[in-house]
Amino acid sequence: MAELRRDPILGRWGIINTDNPVNLDDFEKEQHEPKKGLCVFCYGNEDKTPIEIEAFRLADTKPNTPGWTVRVIPNKFPALQIEGSLDKRGLGIFDLSNGIGAHEVIVDTPYHDKNIPELEITEVRDILYMYSRRAMDLIKDKRFKYIMIFKNYGSSAGASLEHPHSQLIALPMVPKNASEELYGAQKYFEFRGRCIFCDMISQERKEKKRIVFENDDYVAFCPFVPRFSFETWILPKKHHASLYKFADSADKLDGLALILKEVLSRLKICLQDPAYNYIIHCAPSYLMDSVSYHWHIEIIPKLTRVAGFEWGTGFYIVSFPPELSAAKLREIK
Amino acid sequence: MAELRRDPILGRWGIINTDNPVNLDDFEKEQHEPKKGLCVFCYGNEDKTPIEIEAFRLADTKPNTPGWTVRVIPNKFPALQIEGSLDKRGLGIFDLSNGIGAHEVIVDTPYHDKNIPELEITEVRDILYMYSRRAMDLIKDKRFKYIMIFKNYGSSAGASLEHPHSQLIALPMVPKNASEELYGAQKYFEFRGRCIFCDMISQERKEKKRIVFENDDYVAFCPFVPRFSFETWILPKKHHASLYKFADSADKLDGLALILKEVLSRLKICLQDPAYNYIIHCAPSYLMDSVSYHWHIEIIPKLTRVAGFEWGTGFYIVSFPPELSAAKLREIK
Repeated sequence: MAELRRDPILGRWGIINTDNPVNLDDFEKEQHEPKKGLCVFCYGNEDKTPIEIEAFRLADTKPNTPGWTVRVIPNKFPALQIEGSLDKRGLGIFDLSNGIGAHEVIVDTPYHDKNIPELEITEVRDILYMYSRRAMDLIKDKRFKYIMIFKNYGSSAGASLEHPHSQLIALPMVPKNASEELYGAQKYFEFRGRCIFCDMISQERKEKKRIVFENDDYVAFCPFVPRFSFETWILPKKHHASLYKFADSADKLDGLALILKEVLSRLKICLQDPAYNYIIHCAPSYLMDSVSYHWHIEIIPKLTRVAGFEWGTGFYIVSFPPELSAAKLREIK
Repeated sequence: MAELRRDPILGRWGIINTDNPVNLDDFEKEQHEPKKGLCVFCYGNEDKTPIEIEAFRLADTKPNTPGWTVRVIPNKFPALQIEGSLDKRGLGIFDLSNGIGAHEVIVDTPYHDKNIPELEITEVRDILYMYSRRAMDLIKDKRFKYIMIFKNYGSSAGASLEHPHSQLIALPMVPKNASEELYGAQKYFEFRGRCIFCDMISQERKEKKRIVFENDDYVAFCPFVPRFSFETWILPKKHHASLYKFADSADKLDGLALILKEVLSRLKICLQDPAYNYIIHCAPSYLMDSVSYHWHIEIIPKLTRVAGFEWGTGFYIVSFPPELSAAKLREIK
């Protein structure tokens, strides 16, 4: 029989198929098509993107020319625009405002075919350090209440360009998912006087069944109530509400780069290079020292299509249980 | 510039691309593959499905033989099982229970190639009446707190079988999305003393910009804060909290059958037979006379992939604004 499990942070239920896990071959396979035509994120095409915002560069190279190692540019088709004022207003029962925000693209590497599993630890570290730098820069703009950094890998995960890249969106309000997470963690703290994520880490490390990998400073596990098969979270063992505030120098990020590369490599081998999203969950700027919120990365492979039941209920049916996903991922050498 | 719009029921924000709508040709096209092999939902294969729960049948035909017009069977691979007890329990910080519920398949029609746009109004009406009959039957089981009826059409929308069918899941708890909707509607009622859906209908009928179609008893519009381009809702003009309680005879369903067929036909023509889900949103059994909740159908075409930003924030970026979607759908003859 399946299990109904309740996410202790969001109060969301999931149906976990603990009895009859599907065959891994039944999952959707992502088609990765070979490079065709010009890639605007490759060396030599810097003039075909908007002007760069920031880049790590080899000595003596100029902005908007080759020689960069991580490069940040405004999104050419931004969801939100940086210029202007919000102009909040009503329309009958509705509320709206202008679409103000920032939408940046972080080009992870000059290598068109090297994703995180193929990059060196120092290269991954620099991507993460760039995330922090951009977030801390945008937080200074008082119009922005929340910074969301994420990666779409593969077309099933919503990626439209193949060259390895991440995205940053700065929002003028804390989005629903983030505020629910913050609220759930705060309620738990009020009730128990402890961080729910710290408690979760401690329970997972004791039970061991859902652990994928750990090093001195970080732990990766498949959460007890995933939304997707093989969903994996990475958390710092030490309580911090925000990666961005913590990561004020690149050398603090070795452990995180290592575990991120490790987990993505295992997912790649285990599931034949699946499409995935990862999303960095951090406290908003005004809660960066929160005792109840704990930053983390959620990695969600895209192995099945979301259907009417999920859209209607917010319940997710997970066909491969996290205990088995974690065991499969631990096996990979 | 895009608009940030706030859903007044859920408090969810959306980014609506009001300025530069994408070209309709840029949307993903659903590949509908021709029928191959045996279809277990077609006439003559009744013995290849689980035993039928209920069916509308031509006179003098026997259960589990041809002659049915709408046929309900248990899902062969149920997400939840009907036998057993919940056995709620804890596991450290987590909560879980057995996967108890009902999971039924409503085979909409014996015709393998006729979906709602191709069926007669009376045939559509019988599908809807069967929904109500099944829901009212399952509500008698006190273990079930919520009945969700939905349709997945096309593989991008999660359908695994081509033969026209719908699904019903009975859940032992009110799911998160439904309880948020109920709560939002109740808060509005406490504040204003009116049903928010009734107010929305009245504003939409006055503004006219997002109306797709209406008849005497129902109205269809593209909501002000959709999650998806071309998302369309159908609501009864008269306040009712539940379709199922209202629809205690087939002849009450003519108007709904007509508008559902009309809207799905227009979506089919406008978007070249897109994949979609529709979900019937009704009050749970114990709130069927609610003054604040108003049942409705949400139709969500699957034209783009959901990406990391949406999964992370709960914000949706909608590339084609509802005002334009409704105008396109109104134009269709």
